[in-house]
Amino acid sequence: MLERLQLRQSGTSTNLTERLWPFLVVASQTFGLLAFILLTIWVTKFLGGMLWDGGAKEFNVHPYCMVISMILLNGEAISFFRIFRHSSKNTVKLAHASIQLVAFTLATVGLSAVFQFHDNKGYPNAYSMHSWCGLLTVSLFGLQYVFGLVFFVLRFFHENLRQDYLKLHQFFGKIIFAMAIATSLIGIDEELTFAGKYGQLPPVASLGNVLGLVLIIFGIIVAYIITHTEFERPPSDDEFKAISETEND
Amino acid sequence: MLERLQLRQSGTSTNLTERLWPFLVVASQTFGLLAFILLTIWVTKFLGGMLWDGGAKEFNVHPYCMVISMILLNGEAISFFRIFRHSSKNTVKLAHASIQLVAFTLATVGLSAVFQFHDNKGYPNAYSMHSWCGLLTVSLFGLQYVFGLVFFVLRFFHENLRQDYLKLHQFFGKIIFAMAIATSLIGIDEELTFAGKYGQLPPVASLGNVLGLVLIIFGIIVAYIITHTEFERPPSDDEFKAISETEND
Repeated sequence: MLERLQLRQSGTSTNLTERLWPFLVVASQTFGLLAFILLTIWVTKFLGGMLWDGGAKEFNVHPYCMVISMILLNGEAISFFRIFRHSSKNTVKLAHASIQLVAFTLATVGLSAVFQFHDNKGYPNAYSMHSWCGLLTVSLFGLQYVFGLVFFVLRFFHENLRQDYLKLHQFFGKIIFAMAIATSLIGIDEELTFAGKYGQLPPVASLGNVLGLVLIIFGIIVAYIITHTEFERPPSDDEFKAISETEND
Repeated sequence: MLERLQLRQSGTSTNLTERLWPFLVVASQTFGLLAFILLTIWVTKFLGGMLWDGGAKEFNVHPYCMVISMILLNGEAISFFRIFRHSSKNTVKLAHASIQLVAFTLATVGLSAVFQFHDNKGYPNAYSMHSWCGLLTVSLFGLQYVFGLVFFVLRFFHENLRQDYLKLHQFFGKIIFAMAIATSLIGIDEELTFAGKYGQLPPVASLGNVLGLVLIIFGIIVAYIITHTEFERPPSDDEFKAISETEND
């Protein structure tokens, strides 16, 4: 472990990436906030606002809730382990699980809105690439949440199995995050294609496209933060070590 | 390094993932082939075939070339370093660079097809989320190719800088691959929305959606192969060590 730490602290490569850290955190928060602002303007000013009335304004609840939950909150929650790597692991886990619960709840509201809108209008449900990807993504997110609870909160199963599952949880966390961004981009394209005049790039279309680009950039920065070992929690605070110590108490 | 190897060989987690290896390779090739077959059937039987005539058949060259180049060939090329990790590093690098060159060439054919089709029909170019994402993805792919040549074939710059850039090359390789899949999913949705009757899921739409799902599964398997350290080239064959030794000869 010590050798790994020393390895990490030496070498140009690591130092360069570590020096990027403050910029990466500021950039991720800035692009997340920018996406939130653009999304809010897009939905409220350009798509006509939100209202739970079974009409177009209820449809608008869908993109608003889905982007906030599956991309913005999800992106924050998965970055937490890196951003707060010097805080107590249990506190960070609690924050991660809480934010993901809020995200999942918001996602179900967003899904209800679009299903109710379709049903009211007599439109078919769940036929497009966007809907297939979206349902797959939210289902995986829900499964991932339940597995996370079972393994890391309720702590069923032995430490070895928890360690195995942690790798899978982290892998699928990234996959689900990427799928959420992809699904939103498909959804924006679909919405603007349905609305018509997409080819003339009216303000609603330009803003939608720019929102998509900002979501991609947010995704890339979060991906950089969560995949680079330089930003890992120092091994001394390792969950599994901490658990073993507690179990030996 | 030896300690790292030993660490890698011990522990349930690593063994479990290593035992998955043959299945992962077979699965990645199977889903890649399946995607190729579905794509070929979709484009030739359901979208009406390909012809360089400025009409709808020329448009069809676009999805065919883009999926083959930016997802299938690209996915193979980035898996090569893991699949052939016991072969000579230089051979694998040559194969990687060659396949990516074929991919980039095919992508430019695919882009020409859609631009020429739009121009012939008097349709606007590069307005949709699909086109913005696609142009960004192909541009990053081209940049990545040029940087790859400069750093790893022409070997400008010092070893330390090459090692720094390798990390960035690998990171953006994954981002570009994910963006290519996302862009294709948007494109399939857009094509089927334009064609109409999407909501009734006619065969062309069902097949397009299934193709999208197969591309997602292919992407997930490739991502698993390229992100798990268990499948890394054994450190003794490390490029940088090999280069240092050659330079000392």
